[in-house]
Amino acid sequence: MGPHPAVAAIRLAVRRVLHDVLTDHTTDPTTPDEPLVLVACSGGADSMALASALAFETRKLPVRAGGITVDHGLQDGSDTRATEVAGRMTALGLTPVEAVTVTVGREGGPEAAARDARYAALDAAAERHGAAAILLGHTRDDQAETVLLGLARGSGIRSLSGMAAVSGAAGRYRRPFLQLDRQTIRKACIAQELAVWDDPHNSDPAYTRSRLRHEGLPALEKALGKGVVEALARTAQLSRDDADALDTWAADAETAVRDEAGALECAKLFGLPPAVRRRVLRRAVIAEGAPAGSLFARHIEEVDRLITGWRGQGAINLPGRVEARRQGGRLVIRQG
Amino acid sequence: MGPHPAVAAIRLAVRRVLHDVLTDHTTDPTTPDEPLVLVACSGGADSMALASALAFETRKLPVRAGGITVDHGLQDGSDTRATEVAGRMTALGLTPVEAVTVTVGREGGPEAAARDARYAALDAAAERHGAAAILLGHTRDDQAETVLLGLARGSGIRSLSGMAAVSGAAGRYRRPFLQLDRQTIRKACIAQELAVWDDPHNSDPAYTRSRLRHEGLPALEKALGKGVVEALARTAQLSRDDADALDTWAADAETAVRDEAGALECAKLFGLPPAVRRRVLRRAVIAEGAPAGSLFARHIEEVDRLITGWRGQGAINLPGRVEARRQGGRLVIRQG
Repeated sequence: MGPHPAVAAIRLAVRRVLHDVLTDHTTDPTTPDEPLVLVACSGGADSMALASALAFETRKLPVRAGGITVDHGLQDGSDTRATEVAGRMTALGLTPVEAVTVTVGREGGPEAAARDARYAALDAAAERHGAAAILLGHTRDDQAETVLLGLARGSGIRSLSGMAAVSGAAGRYRRPFLQLDRQTIRKACIAQELAVWDDPHNSDPAYTRSRLRHEGLPALEKALGKGVVEALARTAQLSRDDADALDTWAADAETAVRDEAGALECAKLFGLPPAVRRRVLRRAVIAEGAPAGSLFARHIEEVDRLITGWRGQGAINLPGRVEARRQGGRLVIRQG
Repeated sequence: MGPHPAVAAIRLAVRRVLHDVLTDHTTDPTTPDEPLVLVACSGGADSMALASALAFETRKLPVRAGGITVDHGLQDGSDTRATEVAGRMTALGLTPVEAVTVTVGREGGPEAAARDARYAALDAAAERHGAAAILLGHTRDDQAETVLLGLARGSGIRSLSGMAAVSGAAGRYRRPFLQLDRQTIRKACIAQELAVWDDPHNSDPAYTRSRLRHEGLPALEKALGKGVVEALARTAQLSRDDADALDTWAADAETAVRDEAGALECAKLFGLPPAVRRRVLRRAVIAEGAPAGSLFARHIEEVDRLITGWRGQGAINLPGRVEARRQGGRLVIRQG
């Protein structure tokens, strides 16, 4: 008798990613023989299922499997919890296993600050252990939530593209469960009798993502039907490809609209499709020192009006003390 | 004392559209002197506000203003209601005013069937009266709902682009209120003491849009904050521009990837960004007779694998008896 279908599903998802890691690895002759793959594990159902599937699949593959758990130090007893999670990973047969403590700052709000600290710790752990990849337990449901969070920003299709299956420096982060739903993962945990820990943050209505998970998304499903999560995940993939293609176009177009001295020619900018022109302008403004995170659609629209709605308006002030003005048929963008 | 701010806002929105209509009109020397602009009016708050603003603004402009109300015949007394709405438009000073009765079919579900019948009647009315434009009362809230409905399809950024400010044959349909929120329109009705009629369909939970309006969107706002409607409307505009740019690229690319005999070259298709390649494939499949409405992302993905994941697979069957196969480095798409 084979494993429970949910267990088979999580193992297949991990196996596919491990094959990709091995393919990438063997094409690089400078790396040692057996690549190390780490799982980032909070002790929750998603990442415990991931740890279990990684342990199982690596038995038959020339891959070493280890695990990292991050103690954010945000709750009493989180250090004990991290030690417990590390112990569970060791029990699964993973090695090396490490519990890393981080200090969470305040920048960008509590969720963003915790995420930044966590990824910095995972990056450092990957370097320390010479890991070829770090597996993350994000599911299709997490992806759907991320798309809705991006939608709420209203800043275009890049923010709708959610999380990538492969991301980070040299494609370090891999998300094997991005096409699997949370329900399947839960079933795989039960079938394997895995002890899992429910992070209280996940149900704390003070967190946007938690409100979305427990109220927003269920209400949307009730109105639109059960396929919403899948539709959102598919939107993420399509939006990502579209955003990539348009970025490529904008990079090419930026070269084409500059004169010999490197200045942006307004007449040539005018000839571009609006979607491409706005991306060229955004690139140019960031290249002059505007911080990408503070640059909103309305800023770029205002710069765009120097091209499409020219009536002699003055210089536009942008974040990072960058200034855009139209001068003799050229768009001059400069940091003051 | 000027008008109530909400009344000023709806009038300004209509004035801008009328200026556009006049600009387009005067550049066409074959049309008679004063263009006719019709309002499509259900008697609800949005379209009654639109009718009132159209009547007010056209007093000072060389534009004739009329109105059409469509009786869908779906409720008892809908004919009486239509006559009443026509009477209200006449009382506002609009002429010609017409109540048109349509027969709603069943294709695509009750909402789509009613919409199809309504637009066919409006198109016919525009032809009959020689109208230059038909104004529709869709608001920013309607736009947000349309984006969410598109999101639920998960078929990419075109379906996220909502309703256009200008659409239909020769840009016949105009939506002056697309940037205004429903609340402002309601206030404008109250300030002008306009009698309005609440369509019971708008609060009937049997309708997807109604569930979205009364449950889905409020829950999403509760989770994500009050800016959701605005963010969705902005997403619509950005997605529309992006989808237009990518369609342009795909049209150009389609020519470039064909050999002298007009066949699609697999090697050239392979070199395109995935977002552009999939659009080229979609165009090619539709050109051979596949009905656009039955062609889903998964169909195109399967055809795409003939290019990106070639392992000798057989012909792909597509809607409309269209078949795609790879043959001698060419992609052959044909209706059987």
